Amino acid sequence: EFEITWDASAAEKGGWSSFMAKEISEEPEAISKTLLGRIVDGAVRLSELDVLGEGALANIDRVVILGCGTASYSGMLGKYAIEKWARIPVDVELSHEFRYRDPVINDRTLVVSISQSGETMDTLMAVKYAVAAGAKTLSICNTQGATIARESDAAIYTHAGPEVAVASTKAFVAQVAALYLFGLHLAQVRGTLSPEEISGLLGELQALPDQLATVLEQHDAITQLAGWMTDTRSVLFLGRHAGYPVALEGALKLKELAYIHAEGFAAGELKHGPIALIEPGQPVFVIVPSPRAKDSLHKKVVSNIQEIRARGARILAIAEQGDAAVLPYADLVIPIPLASTLFEPLLAVAPLQIFAMELAAAKGLDVDQPRNLAKSVTVE
Amino acid sequence: EFEITWDASAAEKGGWSSFMAKEISEEPEAISKTLLGRIVDGAVRLSELDVLGEGALANIDRVVILGCGTASYSGMLGKYAIEKWARIPVDVELSHEFRYRDPVINDRTLVVSISQSGETMDTLMAVKYAVAAGAKTLSICNTQGATIARESDAAIYTHAGPEVAVASTKAFVAQVAALYLFGLHLAQVRGTLSPEEISGLLGELQALPDQLATVLEQHDAITQLAGWMTDTRSVLFLGRHAGYPVALEGALKLKELAYIHAEGFAAGELKHGPIALIEPGQPVFVIVPSPRAKDSLHKKVVSNIQEIRARGARILAIAEQGDAAVLPYADLVIPIPLASTLFEPLLAVAPLQIFAMELAAAKGLDVDQPRNLAKSVTVE
Repeated sequence: EFEITWDASAAEKGGWSSFMAKEISEEPEAISKTLLGRIVDGAVRLSELDVLGEGALANIDRVVILGCGTASYSGMLGKYAIEKWARIPVDVELSHEFRYRDPVINDRTLVVSISQSGETMDTLMAVKYAVAAGAKTLSICNTQGATIARESDAAIYTHAGPEVAVASTKAFVAQVAALYLFGLHLAQVRGTLSPEEISGLLGELQALPDQLATVLEQHDAITQLAGWMTDTRSVLFLGRHAGYPVALEGALKLKELAYIHAEGFAAGELKHGPIALIEPGQPVFVIVPSPRAKDSLHKKVVSNIQEIRARGARILAIAEQGDAAVLPYADLVIPIPLASTLFEPLLAVAPLQIFAMELAAAKGLDVDQPRNLAKSVTVE
Repeated sequence: EFEITWDASAAEKGGWSSFMAKEISEEPEAISKTLLGRIVDGAVRLSELDVLGEGALANIDRVVILGCGTASYSGMLGKYAIEKWARIPVDVELSHEFRYRDPVINDRTLVVSISQSGETMDTLMAVKYAVAAGAKTLSICNTQGATIARESDAAIYTHAGPEVAVASTKAFVAQVAALYLFGLHLAQVRGTLSPEEISGLLGELQALPDQLATVLEQHDAITQLAGWMTDTRSVLFLGRHAGYPVALEGALKLKELAYIHAEGFAAGELKHGPIALIEPGQPVFVIVPSPRAKDSLHKKVVSNIQEIRARGARILAIAEQGDAAVLPYADLVIPIPLASTLFEPLLAVAPLQIFAMELAAAKGLDVDQPRNLAKSVTVE
C-alpha cells in the first residue's frame, strides 16, 4: 500500500516551486515577445497606434501616465524615457489619486494607462474620466480584450503571457519594454531622435533578454542571501534616476511577500531625513548607476554608500560588472551586465524580485498568494 | 552652598522644552505673518512678482516645483492648488533627481523652488539648471537674501521666523500658505477663478491661524498617546488627495526624530500591496477627508479603515470635528476644525509633528538635533 501525493498545479508551474519563480524565469521571454514584430529595419513599427489617426501623436503636448502599485513604477521609467527621447513633459499619477483633484487635461493630452490585467478598477475609472475630458488614451495591458484596452483609443499589448502569482514580475518588465518602444515611436514621429539613434537604442533593447538571462543565473546566490536574512525586521532600498523606481519596486515586493517594513528612497533624499533611520546592521540595497553614466551619479551614490556604511549599514549593491569602486564598501555585490542608464532597471529589478520571493519562502510564506492581496484589484 | 543650573538656551526656547515645541507653537503666527500685507481688498497682492514683468505669468504653460524632503510635500500641495485654481499642469520633482534626466523645460516653464534656508545645495543646482534652460524661476524661501532667492527671477519669502530645530515644522505650513497665495495669484492673473471665489478662498486662508491654534490645544492628549507608544516598531500613515502629502510628512517626521520605520501611503495604494503589512496591533494614522468633500472620498477612506481594522490595525484618525462615521472604527480620533479640502493639511499636519516630537522625547532622544541630520543640507 502506498500513497500518491499529487500537486495539481505542479505541472503548470513547470517544475518551479511557485508560479512566481516560474514567471521570473520567463522575464527574458516576456521582453522578447513584447518586442517581437514591432521592430522593423531598425525602426519602431507599432501598427496598433494607426487607429489614432495621422498626426495625432505629433500634436500632443503632454503625457499623463496612470497606474497603481508596480504599474506606477513602470510608469516612472516610461516618463524618464519619453521625456528624454521625445521631449514631451510627462506626469505619472496614481490612478486612484488622479481624478479626485481636478487634473488639467485636454485634447492635447495623451493619457497612458498601465494595468497587467486591464481590469484594475481605479485605473479604469481614471481612464473614463480622461476620455470624458477629451484626452487621447492609450492602454498598456497584458490581457487581450481587457476592459481598459477597450475603453481606450489604442492599446499596446504586452506579451508576457498569463501571470498567476499575485506579485507582478514578468508583467513589469514587459510594461517597461512596451513603454520604451512607445517612447521611441514618439521620438520617431516627432523627429527628436535620428533614425541612427533610434536604431541603436532598439538594438540595446533587443539585447536585454539575453543579458537578463545571465542575471537570472544568480538565483541560487540570492536564495542563500535571503536564507541568512529571515530575521530581518526592515530593509531599505536606494536608487537614483532610473534606479529609483527599481528601489521602490524592490521595497514593494518585499512588503507584499515577506511582510517586512521595506521602503525605497531616491538616494538624494537620504540627507533630507531617512538617514536618521540607519543604525548598525540595517540592510540597505543600493542600485548603483553605471560608472560610465554621465553627471557623476555613480560617484554620488558611492558617496551615499560610504555615509551609511560609516553608520553601520550592511550594503547589498546591485552594480555593473567590473565596478571596482563599490567593492570596498559592499557586503555583497550582485553584478549586472553593461547597459545604458534607462535599460539598467530591466536588469536590476530581477535580483530584488528573487530576494523578496526567497525571503518569503524561507519564512514559510505563500509567495504566490500573499495575505490580504488579490491579483487584480477590481474594486475601488 | 548651592548650585546654579543654567541652561543658556532655555530663554531662547521661550519656556518650551525644545526649539521644535516652540516652533510648532508658532505655526499660527507663521501662517498669518506670511499672509500679512499680501491680501488687499479680497485680492492677492504679491508685489514681489512684479519683477517678472507684465504678462509673464499669463504666458507660462507648465509649472515645475522643486524641493527635497518636507519641501517636496509642501510642493505637492502647491501642485494640487495651482492645478485646481489656475488650471496649469504642475509637476513636482525632487531637486536631486530633476537635472539628471534631461527634464523638458523651456521659456514657458515656471520653475518654483522651495527651500526653508534657501541654501539647499541640491535645489540650488536644480535652479541653476532651470535658469540655463531658459525657464522662469521663483523661489519660496524663509531666509532673507538666501542664495536660491538671489539666483531666481523672483522670490516669495515666507515669514515663519528663524527655524532652529532640524526637523521643519512652522516653515512647512508657511510654505504651503505661500504656495496657496501664489496659486490664487495665478488664478487672478489668468482669470480662472472669479474675484468672488478668490476672495472667499483668501478668507478661508486667513481663518486658518485661529483654527490651527485650537488644534494645538490638543498637545497634551497627543503627548499622552506618544507616551504609550515608545515600544512601537513601525507606524503607517494613510491619506488621500490633500491628505496624502500630510501622511508622507507625518512619516518623515517620525523617521527623522524617533528613528522608527514609518511610511506614508496614498490610501488607494493599500490594496495594491501595502495592506499585506497589516498585522494585529499595527498602528496606522489615517488622515480622513471631510465627510463634506465631493466624490465620496470620505466613504472610501472609512472603508479603508474598516479593512485594516478587520486585520487588527490600531487606528489613529485625524478627522473633522463631528465626523461620526469614523468613531466606531478608530482607537483614537484627533478632531480638526471644518475646512475646505485643500486647507485641511494645514490643520492636520500639526498633530503628526507633535506626535513625532513627543514620541522621540519619551524615548529620551534629542528632538532638536536628530542623529545624522543637518538643518540645511548645503552639500549635494
